Amino acid sequence: MRTVNQYNLTEAVKESFQTEEGSRFKFLLETFIDHLHDYTREVNLTHDEWMGMLNFLYDCGKISTPERHEYILLSDVLGLSALVDMLNTRGGATEGSNLGPFYLDDAPEMKLGADLSQDRDGATVLVHGRVTDILHKPIPGAIVDTWQADGSGTYPIQEQEQGQDKYDLRGKFTTDENGEYYYTTVLPKPYTVPYDGPVGQLLRAGNRHAWRAAHLHYIVRAPGMRDITTEVFFENTEYLDNDAVFGVRKSLIAKVEPVKKSDKLEYHLEKQPDAKFKFDFVLAPEG
Amino acid sequence: MRTVNQYNLTEAVKESFQTEEGSRFKFLLETFIDHLHDYTREVNLTHDEWMGMLNFLYDCGKISTPERHEYILLSDVLGLSALVDMLNTRGGATEGSNLGPFYLDDAPEMKLGADLSQDRDGATVLVHGRVTDILHKPIPGAIVDTWQADGSGTYPIQEQEQGQDKYDLRGKFTTDENGEYYYTTVLPKPYTVPYDGPVGQLLRAGNRHAWRAAHLHYIVRAPGMRDITTEVFFENTEYLDNDAVFGVRKSLIAKVEPVKKSDKLEYHLEKQPDAKFKFDFVLAPEG
Repeated sequence: MRTVNQYNLTEAVKESFQTEEGSRFKFLLETFIDHLHDYTREVNLTHDEWMGMLNFLYDCGKISTPERHEYILLSDVLGLSALVDMLNTRGGATEGSNLGPFYLDDAPEMKLGADLSQDRDGATVLVHGRVTDILHKPIPGAIVDTWQADGSGTYPIQEQEQGQDKYDLRGKFTTDENGEYYYTTVLPKPYTVPYDGPVGQLLRAGNRHAWRAAHLHYIVRAPGMRDITTEVFFENTEYLDNDAVFGVRKSLIAKVEPVKKSDKLEYHLEKQPDAKFKFDFVLAPEG
Repeated sequence: MRTVNQYNLTEAVKESFQTEEGSRFKFLLETFIDHLHDYTREVNLTHDEWMGMLNFLYDCGKISTPERHEYILLSDVLGLSALVDMLNTRGGATEGSNLGPFYLDDAPEMKLGADLSQDRDGATVLVHGRVTDILHKPIPGAIVDTWQADGSGTYPIQEQEQGQDKYDLRGKFTTDENGEYYYTTVLPKPYTVPYDGPVGQLLRAGNRHAWRAAHLHYIVRAPGMRDITTEVFFENTEYLDNDAVFGVRKSLIAKVEPVKKSDKLEYHLEKQPDAKFKFDFVLAPEG
């Protein structure tokens, strides 16, 4: 190609990459270039707008640290993370939702019936349910890895400087011979995503709030099955309809019910709960 | 909206931004969200690919400094910068091309006929031409602001630690009563864009080189006219057909011709040139 012009530029850019014919990389790259150029043409982007967008990305980099990934947050508030979760949910399996920034892969292993709340303020809730395959067959020995905010909407990992243990309010449970898991914990409260950076500026420019509906995080694993990363929400709580990161799915909302003193619970529990809810996880086979 | 799903997500994200009806911001944002989601659906993006892309942006942030804007470089190698330049070129005016990272807005004012080369290695070339409006009417008093690499492909600003003056090989000329500008300088050589960062990795993954065709940079300004930011290239030189940042346009290629000792040049010059070329700039009215 002699030189580029408005009509051959997009093809020239795609051809400049000598990628393997039929490869996934080629497909991802070429489709990206098409959309990037189509967008630019469609809005007839000015130099100032172009520079503003590149400076926005630059500013996201400046505030990012190994503990704070502003681009994931950007992906979250633009619904990209939610869309990727949706596209990668297998038919019949539990719907996926945001991993979020606070996962630790070395949470302590806990016994079924253990209490995660450790005298924190807030209602103690029994969380229980089964892990099954898509044919509803229970999966014994599945790992239910959970982490959550406390009754004030804070993750202990965020308050290590105030003396909190980052491993608090998290744990890995192993399902019993019936595929069941059960433990008690404190009900989490809503919290805001970080809005002191460029993504916060974007939210403000769009008159959007930064609140997330209260939720528990889960990764559920079992041999031969595809992992599930998801969140569980609670009926009749705030921000279900306008979660800042579009994490709520109808199938992920659990109903919390009170536990009366007279209720005989079927589990051996470390701590007597005030309320309970049930949530079953369904795993699809790997591959 | 109760909760989001694959079918209402894109609309939900757009609706979450309470932007002014009919505003440019609303249009830019909504069109961006559409393309971002369409791309993600079209390629059926996996979690690993999604994370890889966000980490790529994160890594661009880590290598960026006020002197190195890796996102501009990314925009350059993806042809986005070239496309924005093309979309913003006015009919009849000189085509725009990359600003690049080395512009200084306080280059020294120089007299017509001055020499920028200062005994540097390489051929001395007379650069001359006219600045006119789109009706070919000369514009006296127009500012021709130029900067360039030397005969080894290096900008003095890149070698300040080796004792070079960052204001070398740059200057602002003012056109005379005939709209003419003229000066001598050294012919620049090709050089590579920085490829030690994430964008370099992308180029390597696509088996692309990082070379730019040799060029002179210009910003041309005149009262009541729209500024032009562009580059001038030279016929029969390397990388014209595959400039790493897609900066070359047919209309921006000048023909360099030898100057014989016997040639009588029409200008009063500080230094006798070995070669010469002519390039006219055409400015469109503002607004």
